[in-house]
Amino acid sequence: MMPGFLCLSPLDNVAIAVRPEGAVAGEHIPQGHKVALTPIAAGAPVVRYGAIIAYAAVDIAAGAWVREELLRLPDAPALGAYAPRAAAAPEPLEGYTFEGYENPGGGTATRNLLGITTTVQCVTAVVEHAVRRIRAELLPRYPNVDGVVALTHAYGCGVAIDAPGAEIPIRTVRNLALNPNLGGETMVVSLGCEKLQPARLELPVAADQAWVVRLQDAELRGFGDMLAAILRMAEARLERLNRRRRVTLDAARLVVGLQCGGSDAFSGVTANPAVGVAADLLVRAGATVLFSEVSEVRDAAHLLLARAAPPEVARALVRELRWYDEYLARGGVDRSANPTPGNKRGGLSNIVEKALGSVAKSGTSPIAAVAAPGERVTSRGLVFAATPASDYVCGTLQLAAGMNVHVFTTGEGTPYSLALAPVIKVSSRTALAERWPDLIDVDAGRIATGSATVEQTGHEIFRLILDVAGGRRTSAEQLGLDNGLVLFNPAPVT
Amino acid sequence: MMPGFLCLSPLDNVAIAVRPEGAVAGEHIPQGHKVALTPIAAGAPVVRYGAIIAYAAVDIAAGAWVREELLRLPDAPALGAYAPRAAAAPEPLEGYTFEGYENPGGGTATRNLLGITTTVQCVTAVVEHAVRRIRAELLPRYPNVDGVVALTHAYGCGVAIDAPGAEIPIRTVRNLALNPNLGGETMVVSLGCEKLQPARLELPVAADQAWVVRLQDAELRGFGDMLAAILRMAEARLERLNRRRRVTLDAARLVVGLQCGGSDAFSGVTANPAVGVAADLLVRAGATVLFSEVSEVRDAAHLLLARAAPPEVARALVRELRWYDEYLARGGVDRSANPTPGNKRGGLSNIVEKALGSVAKSGTSPIAAVAAPGERVTSRGLVFAATPASDYVCGTLQLAAGMNVHVFTTGEGTPYSLALAPVIKVSSRTALAERWPDLIDVDAGRIATGSATVEQTGHEIFRLILDVAGGRRTSAEQLGLDNGLVLFNPAPVT
Repeated sequence: MMPGFLCLSPLDNVAIAVRPEGAVAGEHIPQGHKVALTPIAAGAPVVRYGAIIAYAAVDIAAGAWVREELLRLPDAPALGAYAPRAAAAPEPLEGYTFEGYENPGGGTATRNLLGITTTVQCVTAVVEHAVRRIRAELLPRYPNVDGVVALTHAYGCGVAIDAPGAEIPIRTVRNLALNPNLGGETMVVSLGCEKLQPARLELPVAADQAWVVRLQDAELRGFGDMLAAILRMAEARLERLNRRRRVTLDAARLVVGLQCGGSDAFSGVTANPAVGVAADLLVRAGATVLFSEVSEVRDAAHLLLARAAPPEVARALVRELRWYDEYLARGGVDRSANPTPGNKRGGLSNIVEKALGSVAKSGTSPIAAVAAPGERVTSRGLVFAATPASDYVCGTLQLAAGMNVHVFTTGEGTPYSLALAPVIKVSSRTALAERWPDLIDVDAGRIATGSATVEQTGHEIFRLILDVAGGRRTSAEQLGLDNGLVLFNPAPVT
Repeated sequence: MMPGFLCLSPLDNVAIAVRPEGAVAGEHIPQGHKVALTPIAAGAPVVRYGAIIAYAAVDIAAGAWVREELLRLPDAPALGAYAPRAAAAPEPLEGYTFEGYENPGGGTATRNLLGITTTVQCVTAVVEHAVRRIRAELLPRYPNVDGVVALTHAYGCGVAIDAPGAEIPIRTVRNLALNPNLGGETMVVSLGCEKLQPARLELPVAADQAWVVRLQDAELRGFGDMLAAILRMAEARLERLNRRRRVTLDAARLVVGLQCGGSDAFSGVTANPAVGVAADLLVRAGATVLFSEVSEVRDAAHLLLARAAPPEVARALVRELRWYDEYLARGGVDRSANPTPGNKRGGLSNIVEKALGSVAKSGTSPIAAVAAPGERVTSRGLVFAATPASDYVCGTLQLAAGMNVHVFTTGEGTPYSLALAPVIKVSSRTALAERWPDLIDVDAGRIATGSATVEQTGHEIFRLILDVAGGRRTSAEQLGLDNGLVLFNPAPVT
């Protein structure tokens, strides 16, 4: 390998420039971009991660900068029959624990939050007002409660609620209310006349317990009454939540969601493979690991299908990828719209290269189950939770799936955060981690500079996940950042 | 007419129960619901507002409660050729003024707000943090500025930005930044790697002036620097905005958006016709009046087309209605999904009845122009600004069209509010106005009880629009309510 360049597979005919100023044979290669290790004839495959990421559109000389204009995008892999590899069951990993909350109705919390579910956008301003008052007036009296979260969103009315696809936002609202970090304490604010009536959420509630504040109810005489009713219902729940205590729990109780955003060419060689090591450790420890982002793994479908050993898992994977293919086709979408300008600037030439780097997050475990968008995940092991790649849509759907810790890798950098689960941000480059010390939790860029291995960084992330699950606050939590929820609604608004 | 019942046209064979307890010939008619004035044979038309709202599915006796189960929904009117009525030009109305702000680059503000445009959801939490600090630390020093608004949204990345329909959210983000109540002071917060790059908004900015804070810029070293950069850019704008003063302006400078939400059977006989009177006065005064909500006026297309006199306006109207028909059909939507459960409880049997009541808001003026969703409106007079009926989607698109005062009618009641323009809420029933005295600005229910006429209430709303445009604070402004923006994105997320 040329000094200052990095590749992960001996089959590769390109490598990635590690340094800000890489130059080979007189040509400048920007950091994160690809250099040709051998001459590549027009029409010949360009290989990275041991897989074909593109075909050369022209003859490319050894040492040349392999940039997007020189490449032809391959077709997406067909969703046909794949021969799954015979997967060895992962070797169990025992003895890892964290300090978490056992929920009364099952499930495990890493944070002790009061959530206020909303059925419709119309109540947002009232609920946000109430949340500000709960924070100021009630929370100081319930010190064991970590916070209060308004589960606000743009859904609930003015939408085609019986159209194909509407089940996705509806079950997402339901399953967000059931996120383990809300401790099973259900509380809903409804307007009254909206299409998404509270009963339609089918939330598990005791028959004798009030769980909905309906703003149009005749007894609520104006804004003051609305706030008082919400605060009253909140306080009854805060009293119960405040009595909870952390106990030592097995790492198998974690539901860790993985995501990347603002990726660069390093994401696939530093941050994502390191997270993949952590994912393998979590799976070996019996935990649930969610990976997602259909449109960014679609071009690695052949690799995923080879890891989906039981036929029903492979069938479910094909079902989700095909649903998404059709969804995009209905909208007239060209897959070349991904990567983003930032991804390309960072050296990712096309969606195939991005997908191969993205899939590295999932490690090497067999895929144990597949969930549709917004579905609650109950399986252990590595689960493909199908979601769009859009950062907040994916995060919201992983929260609905039951995620209680989130790991997010980034190359370009994003102040990503969620209110319902702690987010560990992993930087793919040291420069970003140094520039944003208060926003990045782990610097995986040390892998590129040689000061840490993928394996070491993966173990570090695994241990940090256990610490954060046990209450250690992430960068975003320390700053009090929360970007809000974004529902995935493939059905029309009306 | 039977006492306790109300209808607007001598052609009607049904009337609306005005009182909480209406009973005719022994049958209980819930308030807002319909009673048959004559026997209606199976298959015969049911007529309200002088138009066919349904056909009788069974024989209906005089005095019977005409409920949804007895009715058959007619087909939507075809979008074929209609003969426009020869419309007399409205008689000019002169001498009405308000105290507003003249914007440097044209346009008229009714509020003096600093707006912070965002290009992508990723920056939301940072911008909201900055806005809290601007409110606490800067605004007290700029007392002539009414507030600061974060124009946050779920768009900008993870979306099919070149797909058909993507032009709608993009131009909406652009035109929201140009809303007259932001005084032409452009300021954008961008992440850096997002698909919706700031340049793509094509905002008019001086070449020598910084107008974007890009969080990924190398000189911003962490969260503190990001906030400082946003506050610095905000303060330069606050200084300019603070120097502005209200001046007396002609009513013709208003751009008034009309909307209804949480409608009941009274909406179409009290609040909406009264707003229609105000709309006619505004048009006569030379103002711009926007009405919208495609899916709720679609079934009155024949009435609208008859008012769209120039052929290009009729063609544009057909283009927008057809686009929406196709959008809904692509999503497999059944038009019976509207009205909502609340509408039906309030007495609205179907979308035809709802549409006829909704269109009443637009008054009787000829339709002068048609705008596509998110387009900026430059015409005077009555303009059909095509939008979905979803309350916040419609409000957001009307703001993008250039609205500087909003009038919102409601029967069931909603705490609807917007940050960018004052919202006057008009109740269709006195009971709601009395129950929510701090959330309702005008009680049009007095029309049903006979204590005010449609004409009187319309004049009252017209005068209130001028007062509110001049700085009088609405109920929602006094409570500090703001429900946020919801973009209309008909294209896929990725």
